[in-house]
Parts: sequence; C-alpha cells; structure tokens
Amino acid sequence: MYIDLRSDTVTKPTEEMRKAMYDAEVGDDVMRDDATVIKLEETAADMLGKEAALYVSSGTLGNQIAIQTLTRPGDEIILEQESHIYLYEGAGHAVYAGVSTNTLPGHRGAMNPEDVQKAIRTANIHHPRTGLICVENTHNKAGGTILPLDHLHAVSKIAKEHGVPIHMDGARLFNAVVASGHQATAFTQYVDTVQVCFSKGLGAPIGSILAGSKETIEQARYIRKRMGGGMRQVGVIAAPALVALTKMVDRLAEDHANAKRFAAGLAEIDGLQIDISAVETNIVIVNVAGTGLSEEEFVSRLQEAGVLCGDFGPELVRFVTHKDVTRAQIDEALLKVQRIVRGVA
Amino acid sequence: MYIDLRSDTVTKPTEEMRKAMYDAEVGDDVMRDDATVIKLEETAADMLGKEAALYVSSGTLGNQIAIQTLTRPGDEIILEQESHIYLYEGAGHAVYAGVSTNTLPGHRGAMNPEDVQKAIRTANIHHPRTGLICVENTHNKAGGTILPLDHLHAVSKIAKEHGVPIHMDGARLFNAVVASGHQATAFTQYVDTVQVCFSKGLGAPIGSILAGSKETIEQARYIRKRMGGGMRQVGVIAAPALVALTKMVDRLAEDHANAKRFAAGLAEIDGLQIDISAVETNIVIVNVAGTGLSEEEFVSRLQEAGVLCGDFGPELVRFVTHKDVTRAQIDEALLKVQRIVRGVA
Amino acid sequence: MYIDLRSDTVTKPTEEMRKAMYDAEVGDDVMRDDATVIKLEETAADMLGKEAALYVSSGTLGNQIAIQTLTRPGDEIILEQESHIYLYEGAGHAVYAGVSTNTLPGHRGAMNPEDVQKAIRTANIHHPRTGLICVENTHNKAGGTILPLDHLHAVSKIAKEHGVPIHMDGARLFNAVVASGHQATAFTQYVDTVQVCFSKGLGAPIGSILAGSKETIEQARYIRKRMGGGMRQVGVIAAPALVALTKMVDRLAEDHANAKRFAAGLAEIDGLQIDISAVETNIVIVNVAGTGLSEEEFVSRLQEAGVLCGDFGPELVRFVTHKDVTRAQIDEALLKVQRIVRGVA
Amino acid sequence: MYIDLRSDTVTKPTEEMRKAMYDAEVGDDVMRDDATVIKLEETAADMLGKEAALYVSSGTLGNQIAIQTLTRPGDEIILEQESHIYLYEGAGHAVYAGVSTNTLPGHRGAMNPEDVQKAIRTANIHHPRTGLICVENTHNKAGGTILPLDHLHAVSKIAKEHGVPIHMDGARLFNAVVASGHQATAFTQYVDTVQVCFSKGLGAPIGSILAGSKETIEQARYIRKRMGGGMRQVGVIAAPALVALTKMVDRLAEDHANAKRFAAGLAEIDGLQIDISAVETNIVIVNVAGTGLSEEEFVSRLQEAGVLCGDFGPELVRFVTHKDVTRAQIDEALLKVQRIVRGVA
Repeated sequence: MYIDLRSDTVTKPTEEMRKAMYDAEVGDDVMRDDATVIKLEETAADMLGKEAALYVSSGTLGNQIAIQTLTRPGDEIILEQESHIYLYEGAGHAVYAGVSTNTLPGHRGAMNPEDVQKAIRTANIHHPRTGLICVENTHNKAGGTILPLDHLHAVSKIAKEHGVPIHMDGARLFNAVVASGHQATAFTQYVDTVQVCFSKGLGAPIGSILAGSKETIEQARYIRKRMGGGMRQVGVIAAPALVALTKMVDRLAEDHANAKRFAAGLAEIDGLQIDISAVETNIVIVNVAGTGLSEEEFVSRLQEAGVLCGDFGPELVRFVTHKDVTRAQIDEALLKVQRIVRGVA
Repeated sequence: MYIDLRSDTVTKPTEEMRKAMYDAEVGDDVMRDDATVIKLEETAADMLGKEAALYVSSGTLGNQIAIQTLTRPGDEIILEQESHIYLYEGAGHAVYAGVSTNTLPGHRGAMNPEDVQKAIRTANIHHPRTGLICVENTHNKAGGTILPLDHLHAVSKIAKEHGVPIHMDGARLFNAVVASGHQATAFTQYVDTVQVCFSKGLGAPIGSILAGSKETIEQARYIRKRMGGGMRQVGVIAAPALVALTKMVDRLAEDHANAKRFAAGLAEIDGLQIDISAVETNIVIVNVAGTGLSEEEFVSRLQEAGVLCGDFGPELVRFVTHKDVTRAQIDEALLKVQRIVRGVA
Repeated sequence: MYIDLRSDTVTKPTEEMRKAMYDAEVGDDVMRDDATVIKLEETAADMLGKEAALYVSSGTLGNQIAIQTLTRPGDEIILEQESHIYLYEGAGHAVYAGVSTNTLPGHRGAMNPEDVQKAIRTANIHHPRTGLICVENTHNKAGGTILPLDHLHAVSKIAKEHGVPIHMDGARLFNAVVASGHQATAFTQYVDTVQVCFSKGLGAPIGSILAGSKETIEQARYIRKRMGGGMRQVGVIAAPALVALTKMVDRLAEDHANAKRFAAGLAEIDGLQIDISAVETNIVIVNVAGTGLSEEEFVSRLQEAGVLCGDFGPELVRFVTHKDVTRAQIDEALLKVQRIVRGVA
Repeated sequence: MYIDLRSDTVTKPTEEMRKAMYDAEVGDDVMRDDATVIKLEETAADMLGKEAALYVSSGTLGNQIAIQTLTRPGDEIILEQESHIYLYEGAGHAVYAGVSTNTLPGHRGAMNPEDVQKAIRTANIHHPRTGLICVENTHNKAGGTILPLDHLHAVSKIAKEHGVPIHMDGARLFNAVVASGHQATAFTQYVDTVQVCFSKGLGAPIGSILAGSKETIEQARYIRKRMGGGMRQVGVIAAPALVALTKMVDRLAEDHANAKRFAAGLAEIDGLQIDISAVETNIVIVNVAGTGLSEEEFVSRLQEAGVLCGDFGPELVRFVTHKDVTRAQIDEALLKVQRIVRGVA
C-alpha cells in the first residue's frame, strides 16, 4: 500500500457516499427527471451565490463549457500563465471554442491587475477581441495558493469596465474557503461563472459543478449535451457529490494542517528548497535540485520507498494532502523523503 | 406512476447494479488506476471483437470522440439522413471535428451501398475528402431496425476500396444481437470502431463504450481527456455497466416481445398506421395522422392518461419498451391508446 | 488554341480593364485608403440594394465570410443539396464556421419552401439551431437556372417567421438579372447578404463582392482580415472589377444566346440528352450516357478535338458560354461534338 | 500630401509594375493555367531554396495556411510573444487551425533556444502536443530586427530533435537579406516553410508567397482553396510581384539607410528614447514617454504636421521607411518631430 500524495483526485468515496449511491433516487437527467442532481445543482448554486448550476462529469468539462458559453470564436482569453486551463486541458479552448490565450505571470497564482488591464485588446481589425478572463482559486501550479479578495475585486473592476466576463476555475475553491475563513460567495461575487470539483479534496468519486446566471447555465446545458456531457441516471454520482458538498468541506482543514506539517518537515531536510509561507492549503511544492536528483529520479526513488508524489516540471515535485492520508502517514512519508535525500534509502 | 415508454434511457439501475456500485473497487482512472473500468473495457473489447475499448460517459461522447479520432477537419462523413449523429448530437461533428456531412436516405436505416459508393468524393481541389462512413445499428429513427450483415459487408467493401474507415453507432447493438441471433462480432467485424450504450436497454445508469484498434483507442483516450471526459473513481459507474454488459443482454428479448405485442395491438386501432414488420427490436413508431390528433396532442393526451411516449417528428410518435415496463403495463398502455383514439379518454 | 467552355471563370480581362488596372488610383485598403475599392464597394452596394459592401478575392471567400458572420458554431444551415457552398467549398462551413448542413433537393436549384419550413429545427437540447438559409442564383449545378422571385419571397417569409437570415450565393446573379429582365434588387430584397462574382461572366480577373447591412459588413470586414483576405493596393484589381460591374453586365445576353444556340445544337445530336428549357442563362449541361462514352472520355475526346468542357459528375458534361467564345466558335464546337459522338473524330 | 511612415505596406506600384499588370499573360489559376503566377512561384521557390511555392493574397493568409498545413487541432505552437501571428492575425490560429500558443519572450525578436527547448511539451494526457515553432524575420514589433543565423540554427536543432516543424513569417525577409548580406537561403535552410510579402518594402500592390516542400505546398494549395484564397486571372497581380521579387530587393538598402538616418536624428531630440543599435533594417521604434505626450497624442500631432506614423502600443511609436519616402522627406519629418517635441509645432 502506497502513501498516495500524487493528488487529491485519488480520494475514494466514503462509506456514506457509497450508501448515498446505493440509495440514490434517480431519473433520466437529459429529460430533467433526476431529483438528486437537481437537488445538487440547487444546493451548489445556493452555496456559490449564483442563480443556477450544472453538474458536469469533470472540472475540465466545466471549464471548457464555460469558455464556450462566454466567448465566441476569435476571442482571446486572459489567464495566468501556469493555470490549469492553459497548461493541462489539451488546448481544448482552441479546438472547441476557437479562442486564443493571453497568458500573464502571476504572484502565487494571482495576475497583476495592471497587467490584466494592459492585456485587454483595443478594437483594431488586426486584433482578436478580449472575450474572457479566467482566474484559478486555489491555484494548483502555484502550490494551492488562495486568490486574495482584493485581487479579485481589482480584476473584476477592470473586467466590468471593459464588459469582459470572468470565469473562476475553482476546482479547489473550498480549500480556499476553509483556509481563508471566507464564505464561498466572498470569492464568487467577483465572477460570472465558477467551476468547483467534488472529486478532489471533497472526496466524491466523479464530477464538478458549473454555476452562473440562469441564462448562462441554460446555454451551458445545451453545450454540455453537444460535448457529450449529458448523462442519464446521474443521481448515482450526484448523490455522493451532495455528500461531498454538504459534509466534507470542513474537514479540508485537516488536509491543510497536514500539508503545513509536511512542508515544515521538508524545510528541515538539506537539499530541499521550499517556501513554507506559500503552503496555504493542501498542496506542497518542493524544489529537489539541491538533492542531486532530477525530479523524475526523486519521484521514482520515493515510489520505491512506498510514497507516491508527482513530477511537477523542471526540478519540482508536488505532494497533495487529502482525506485518505493520515497525519501518521505524513510523518512516515517525511522520514522516507529524508532517507532518500540522505542517500540511505 | 407513469408507464414510461419515452425511451429505454429511462431504465433505472437494478438492485444488483446498486450493490455493484456500493462495492466497486475504484481508483483514479485518469491515472489508469481504476481496476473496475479496466475490467469493463477489456470485457467490452472482447465481446465486440476489438483490441481495446474506452469507457465514456455517453453515447454522444463516444460517437464524437470516434469522429475526432478517425477524421481531420475539412473531411466529409457519409451517414444515413436520419441517423442520431446527424440529427441529435447538436452538430458536434461540425463544431468539434470540423467535418461536413453527406446524408443519404436509408431503407430501415440501411443506406444503399451504391449510394455510398457514389457519395465518396473524388480528389479535386474544390472537394472535401471523404473521411468516414457512419452506420447506426439498430437504427433509432427507422424504428429500431437491424442493419443486415450483407449490407454491412457491402458498405465495408466499398470503404476498404477507398481507404475510408467506418464507425458504428451501436448504441443499441445488443438489441440487434439478441433479435438477430448473431454474435456482436458478426456486426462489428465490418467496422473500425463501434460505440455501445450501457444506459439504454441494458439498464446501467450511465455510460457507453467505444471499441477499436489499440492505436485508435489510445488516441481516443487523449481526445476524451480534451473533451472533458476523463473521470476519477469511475469504477462506481463502470461496475453497474459491467453488470449490464454481462447479465442484461439476454433479457432484451422480453423488450422485443413486448414491442411486437404493443405494435400488433396498435395495428388494430383504427386511425393508427404502423408497419409491424419494421418492429424488429424494442422501438415502435406509429403514424397518428389518421386519429385527427397532431403528434403533440397525441403525446399530451396519452400523458394525461398516464402513459409517456415521444413526439418523433411530423405525425409520428415513438414508444420504446424496456426492462422497467412489464407485459401487463404494455397491455394497459394499449387500452389507453385505444380510448384516446376513440375519443373517450 | 482551344475553344474554352470549361467555365466563365476563364474569361480574360478586356483592354479597358487592363487600362483601368494600369491607371488605378490606389492606397492601402487595410487602412481604408484605397479610393478605387471604396468606389467599387459603394457602387456594388447601391446596385444590390444594400447599405454596404465588401470586396473579397473570391466567391468562396465571400460565401464563407457570410456564413461566419451570420451564424455561430453548432448552427445548421439549410441549403440546396447541389449548391456550390455545400459541394465545392472544401467543407469550409464546417472547418471555419463550425456549422452543419441540412441539404434539401431543388427543382432547377430552388428548394421547395415547404421543405425549408420543415427543415427548420425546433428548440431541443439534442438539436443544432437553424442559423442560416443559403440560396444560389443562378444555380450552377442545376445548369445556370434562375431562382423565381416568388420562390425567394416564399423562402424569405419562412425565414423571417423563424428569425433566420438568408445568404444568396449570387456568383452569377447578373446572369439572372439579364436573362430575367428583373433588377438585381428584385432578387436581393429577399436576402440579408449576397455575394456576386466579378471574375466569371463579367470578365474581371479577380474578385467578388459581399453586400449586406452596415453592421453585417463591418463585422464581415473583421472576419475577412482574420481569414487573410485583407489586401493592400487593392485598387489595381478593384478597377477592372468596377469596369465589369458597370460595363459588362448587359453583354451577358450574348452568352445566353450562345448557350441556347449551343443547347439547341446538342439536342439534335443522337446520344446526347439535354433539357433545352432548363438553359436559362450561360450554362449547358448534357447527359452523354447515350453516346457510349463516359463523361471523362467525352471530355477527353473533345479536348483532343480542341474544345474544353467540364466533367460534371456521373454521365454529365458542362459547357459554359462567356465573352471569350464567339458565336462562330460555338458553331465550331457543335461540329466537333457531333463528330465525336458519331465516332468519326 | 503626407510623408507616410506608417508602414511599408503603403508603397504604391512602380511604373514598371503597372506596365507588367497591363501586359500580364493570364489564365485561370484555380485550373493552374496562369503562366505568370507559375513563373512567380517557381522563381520564389528557387530564391528561397524550397521545392515549391504558392502565391497568396496576403501575409496573414500565408501564415494561416502554413499553420493549418503543418499542425492538427489541439496542437500548441511556440512563438515569440510579440510576433505578428500571435498579436495581429485575429486569433486565426485558434479559430481556423484549432491550435493554442506558447508565447516566449524574445531578445530583438529572437526567442532563447533554451526557452524553446523547455517549452516543448512532454507526452502527457493533459498536454497539447507541440506541433509547430514559428519565427519572424525581420521581427516587426522588435523594430525590424534580424534573426541571427546561429539563433535559427539552434532553434532548428531543437526542432529536429523533437520532430517539430518550423515556419518562418518572413514578411520582411528580404530586408534581413539586404541588411545582413546573407542569401535568403542562409535563413530559410533552417525552416520548413517560409512566407514572404511582396507588398511591403518590395512595393508590389498585393500578395505574398509561401514556400516549402512539394508535398507541403500541394496540401497548402488545397487549404488555400478552402480558405477562399483561390483566385482566377491572378497573373495581373503576380506580374508586379515578379517585378518586386526580381528588381526591388537591392534597393531596400536605401530604406535601411533612411531608417538609420531617421533614428540618429530622433536620438538627438530630448524626450525621445531610442536604441539606435536596434535599427537594423527599415523600422524605427521610439519611446515618446519623455515628451509628455501620450503615443496617441504624438501620432495625432505629427499627423497634423503632415507626417504619418503608427501608435505601437504603450508609449511607443513606429516609423517605417520605404521606397515612397525620400531622404529629403526623412529630414523634413525629423524637423517636424523636433518641433512637436519642443512644443512649437
């Protein structure tokens, strides 16, 4: 049995979720007959402060539907240069929505509002139209960092001035909520649409929600069908998602505590470089260059020792804490890292 | 409680399926760690006579991934003019794959092979390239009719001569299997890829399979991710799909018997026009023009009487039999149709 | 020297056109500094009864820009099944606009308005949206036939009822104008946009015009730039197009007379099958099946004899009359056809 | 009469070009019957060291066809962050080719080869595939700078190692040739395709060439037709392009001398900031922030004084020298700039 710190996507459904699946009231959701998913969508919309919501089978699908709903082909979207939509969604924005990207550097995942302002295209026959701004909260590649409210406020102000909508990739929004103590709506008030994953830290097996205005979600529902995202007795997976949404949020605090503990431990190991202050939620990114091991070697050695983590680009390795890893396992993982770095593994 | 004959998509999971969900062994399928979906994919590939298979969340997704995998933008695909891909998938082929369509008339869903031959484009700078032929088996709009093997053989021969692949939308392939007595491979030997739904007559809550060569399915897996179709602990829905695939096929014979019984009953009602000989599987299409009711009115009156069916285009109404409708309910539905047509409802 | 009846696209610029090129006042049209093309656009808009017009380098470009301007991805366009946009533009509508097609049969190029009415999609989550109706006037594949005004009126009425715009591929609109005696506006009043070619019967070397409302053409100008259709000192080709538009329309009557003369001659040759009544403008289509020659052989033999014509699909050969073919050459070509058919060539 | 330094695209055809248009031998190029454009394509292919070439109506069209020819949807292209393809082609790469961009910073337009190396995506189901590298030579936004041969060599080596093709946007390649003293082939040997404009400094009214392997250009010809880029008697504009290519290259040296002279003059004006060493060809970019005028005001004041230049983004103004601006006019323009900056205009 590995201690699996590759991602919080590996979390397995709880007993309560399995029972919820077993007992789920279902219907054909393409015909809007599935009571469970309707309840999930209403609950999520409410928690996210939006008029309506749409259940989708993945975060990527939610993001891509939002882009197709809010833009038109030939638009340019502004987003942080290491955002998930830009890096990890197979260029779906270009293939399926026909939009280009303007990628800006971020500080802990937050683009400089002045950069955003400058990035908005002027009307000119050579230019694409700026059609959307995307923000990511928490920001995965930056290490699970939380977008500050004043940052969102500033970006939102610019967006409104230019009539450009904002989509939030909030795959891990509830990590930001728990870690910051803010309500979800404190963040989502600044955006037109938000996508939140149930299958990461919240532990549901499958699915995400896309929330926005009634009109937007109505259009998103059409696009979801076209994307092949319409499902039938979807209550069987909406039921555990409802458990995730209503009962699993608060416990994210444990994951955050474990991440801080793990990061603090790593910081004491010679050869590892880590910015503890950036560990705001459940993601720990460490630079392994000083160990003399490449990131691939590091990941591989640690796997041999029974700990799974992720190669996160040149010199970087990512660890993600979640409900299926205990504090004891965190300590065990630290020991194993220590041995590998010391070359005694 | 309605007698729901709108579609076999309304079928609810069996007790065995619910238990399978509850007990499912799961993992993160994006990382290929879900043993249940791997087993499902292997089982399906085997039954369909293909090297590999890919689980997808809907039949539409399976069809659209096949099109994106087998074609390139600017291709033209040949398909029957009332096929699901053409009529009911939101023009996904154009938006997502950038391909045009050449729609041919069919006899009980089967295009004339000579028409297919003629429809293949010659090389000319004005022409799109013929990139794919799609067939649908059973054919929904034609009334659940089965594509004859010699038809498939003839189309396949033409396709091979021109180096054009064939995709089968086999959403209800197992209805064709059970009704014809042929093995699934008798049909699928003629095509490069085939998509089969678990969530129609087979009763699983969610999902379909796309099967083909190893290389094709490997590429399809990338495209599925880009389409947002990658899911995490997918075993929870793959498990009931495995039940559907291994234990629910033979019982489709009951649905077919019920459809024939229902069709025979409708044929005796003055004002309804129906070709009983075309009722080959579980779909019954009837022309209601002779009743003096429009198809919308007919559907609406029948709903008031407790029976659900579907408006299927000008003058036509569709009934679909499935595991959640008993023979007694079929007889009850017939009585209610009779009353409505006689104007005594 | 061949007698070239392949197409009216082979027409060469007149001496007056060459002088116009030589003398053309020019500027950078991307910057809107080319006085000649502005004059051409204003003149064309006026003649076509539209607010504005845009010069484009080809008819295909004009049609494709219209489609991109008037539709959105996932729309379906209704058009005649042998229309140029559907058959001969490389599936550009699917690749570049992401729209699907609903192709309807036509009588002499005119779709049945009832078919159009039925083809308009109802709002349904499975359906594409009907986004555009395209008509072609004169209709190339039907043999240069003219769309009757009452046909256009009927289609226009349906389109308005459903809020669907109409685009006319009027590549040879002025042939319809001259042959019918109607003003161009008699036809264009029924459509939102119209594309007319200068480089067919009108004899200009290059270019077409797209006309429509100010707003539509403004948007079309952006899309033209994105399609790579923005040119610089475009006055050098706009100048001969202006000659074509203002001085070459009336002489199309000669081409029509030649086409009728040629068709009448062909009708007297045993083995050729032709509907003389369908020869309304400058296109003559003849069925050569009765000659014992395939259409490829027929075209090839005639080429050896010094006459060029076009293979127009199974059994059919197309001849197009134009300003660079004299009546004497028409008679000579007839003689050569006669000899070939009689097997004495 | 303005002294027009907005762009070298404003150059008007020479008397020799006008005569060439007047006398041009023409045919229908869609049928490959235009001898003049064939000669142009062969001449250009030869000068650029490629097997074949294709005439296109604009540089944007040439670039977009190259992208569509060399990539497939879902690819990512690597290019400099201020390149023309990225900034000024209306996001055509996303709309028409379905590809995303990875934009890298450049030094005088040249990306760091190490950055290019790092930007190439690894095979991963989340990633787009790196499908193309684009380079721009001379680089417009960097001020007409020339890509060093060793830079191209280094990028080419990386590209080959990863099997990624390179396209050169060589809109102003001959400026690089003349200024560097290298043959065109010294640059183009490192790339798979190259696009060169005839309608900038070379003075032709319209058009560009795309050169590459026979197979690539054959495919490009199909895509050009689909993009609406097929034209008919194209010899009338190919003829002046041939003059441009064969007789106008050497004189670009005058433009370069004028640019240096102009830059040197600007450098002496207080309030203007300019890096003279970066003025390698015919483009002069100056920072006007120190004048107290915004770039819009600067451009506007200078226009009132009779000199046209271009707003080139925050604080920057661009001047481009070309054949229609004499040395005397350069000096006059300098005087006018001086007056404006001194506030005495």
